[in-house]
Amino acid sequence: MRPTMKDVALAAGVALKTVSRVVNGEPGVNPATAERVREAIERLGYSRNESARVLRRGRTATVGLVIEDVADPFYAGLSRAVEEVTIVEGCLLLSGSSGEKPARERELVRTFCARRVDGLIVVPAGDDHSYLRPELDAGTPAVFADRPPGPGLDVDTVLSDNAGGAMEAVGHLLAHGHRRIAMLGDHPSIFTAAERLAGYRSALGQLFDPRLVAMRAPTPETVRTDLERMLALDSPPTALFTGNGRLTVTALRALGGRRMGLIGFDDFELADLLSPGVTVVAQDPAGMGRVAAELLFRRLSGDGGPSEHVQLPVRLIPRGSGELSP
Amino acid sequence: MRPTMKDVALAAGVALKTVSRVVNGEPGVNPATAERVREAIERLGYSRNESARVLRRGRTATVGLVIEDVADPFYAGLSRAVEEVTIVEGCLLLSGSSGEKPARERELVRTFCARRVDGLIVVPAGDDHSYLRPELDAGTPAVFADRPPGPGLDVDTVLSDNAGGAMEAVGHLLAHGHRRIAMLGDHPSIFTAAERLAGYRSALGQLFDPRLVAMRAPTPETVRTDLERMLALDSPPTALFTGNGRLTVTALRALGGRRMGLIGFDDFELADLLSPGVTVVAQDPAGMGRVAAELLFRRLSGDGGPSEHVQLPVRLIPRGSGELSP
Repeated sequence: MRPTMKDVALAAGVALKTVSRVVNGEPGVNPATAERVREAIERLGYSRNESARVLRRGRTATVGLVIEDVADPFYAGLSRAVEEVTIVEGCLLLSGSSGEKPARERELVRTFCARRVDGLIVVPAGDDHSYLRPELDAGTPAVFADRPPGPGLDVDTVLSDNAGGAMEAVGHLLAHGHRRIAMLGDHPSIFTAAERLAGYRSALGQLFDPRLVAMRAPTPETVRTDLERMLALDSPPTALFTGNGRLTVTALRALGGRRMGLIGFDDFELADLLSPGVTVVAQDPAGMGRVAAELLFRRLSGDGGPSEHVQLPVRLIPRGSGELSP
Repeated sequence: MRPTMKDVALAAGVALKTVSRVVNGEPGVNPATAERVREAIERLGYSRNESARVLRRGRTATVGLVIEDVADPFYAGLSRAVEEVTIVEGCLLLSGSSGEKPARERELVRTFCARRVDGLIVVPAGDDHSYLRPELDAGTPAVFADRPPGPGLDVDTVLSDNAGGAMEAVGHLLAHGHRRIAMLGDHPSIFTAAERLAGYRSALGQLFDPRLVAMRAPTPETVRTDLERMLALDSPPTALFTGNGRLTVTALRALGGRRMGLIGFDDFELADLLSPGVTVVAQDPAGMGRVAAELLFRRLSGDGGPSEHVQLPVRLIPRGSGELSP
């Protein structure tokens, strides 16, 4: 049904080799003949099967991207940036969401590898990536973004300064007079959650109180329960550090207008429109996606140097909630 | 570098055909031999080239998705839903953002087709899709989501009830006593913007005043200018209908706390946390993605019936801003 090169040759009244020369931009076809071939291509709607063509050259001109959830604005921004670089490089992007499930991450990576993507960008859900070793050995480069791979995998990484950002947030709250500063974070098995907890702890020093910390996969219920428990303490928190954008929003809902110092990790739309505006430590998801993709394409173009580890700075944006006094 | 089936055969001490039988799950291999082959596969890290395999069967087991911008929460939600269905169907998703540029949309679709995606889901940026006809004729089905194709293309579509939702929003503001209701919308060459304008106009009837309408690609500057112009009228608007989520947020910033009736098309996170909460007409981006993907896979499984046109209902969510009196 789909027109072939043979159909084009027949319609243009030329040899198959002539069509092939025109399609591949090779010399040796006289201009009038080339024009006739192009006309036949246009008329029949012929298009070369790029998948077959690139595959014959031992590549697929695709990049596989595994993220946590494309519906999360952080990963959507990262995706868009990876997409931009990928298209400029003449490649297409296969992407999938792990939903924070290690098994799903592995399945996606394996599926991408079985399809012979030229390279991978992975935001890992799990912490065992030994399954990737045969792929790396076979020459498929991988870049890990947002979170590093599990032990023993020597690949390029692009991470935010998670601990530094948390330290800065807590330091900012301390500077505004808070001494009882709570933290709500995601499960500490997640690298970024653990790093942010470490930064929080290190900034607090002697002021650290484990009763003011709750680290688990957040739902509106767990966040409400954890906050209620902390606020019922004899010496309740006067400020809160939330470990990611979803937690910040969920905590704001749970607080229901209660006045409390607040700094969230990750910026989010409308943070400036709330009252007070929400002070955040902003990451750069687009920068992370761009740097990861650029590292990957550098590997794809033959850079065999030692693995690179990029740490992206974060930025504290004061908007009001982080500047309230106790 | 990557281990081949031959390497597996050599390592397991069996014939190539035996390895092929094990890999393809064909009968006729004794269990001990099969075990030896599987062990060799595991040890060498062999994996079948799925891209080559599916290509030999005349398909690629990939679906191409063109959206406006994956970093826009509406399209991110739609993407995630398409991804879910695609993975369950054993296919992978190639996706790209057109950035509202018809040329980029065409380039993405053509690239996907040249890679021989099995099917396409398109949120069109342009209104001429004649370039798709050869692909449809060649048997590559396409489903258009959010916006219909240009004239002459008979494909499945999944659209929201844009006009109905706009009518409901304006009717709601009228019922709360507003008579001067402004509309800020995107450029009317965009189907959804034009439909929402039509609904707005139809609900207003004799109350329609062209001076209260501004339809153009929004930036913070255009939104501020348009609102200032309207508010300076002798008879300024007491309520505002915004034609999409980005416009709602931009208008909220431009209004800077000014008390005014407001209903936005599209729901957005935190709409409930603003003061007053923002009344919206909510679409169902995940439903749109799911229905579009299901229609596509029905076509891929051989359904050759007449094209289907699904209209998804929208839902008015009162939160305060749409219930203010003039």
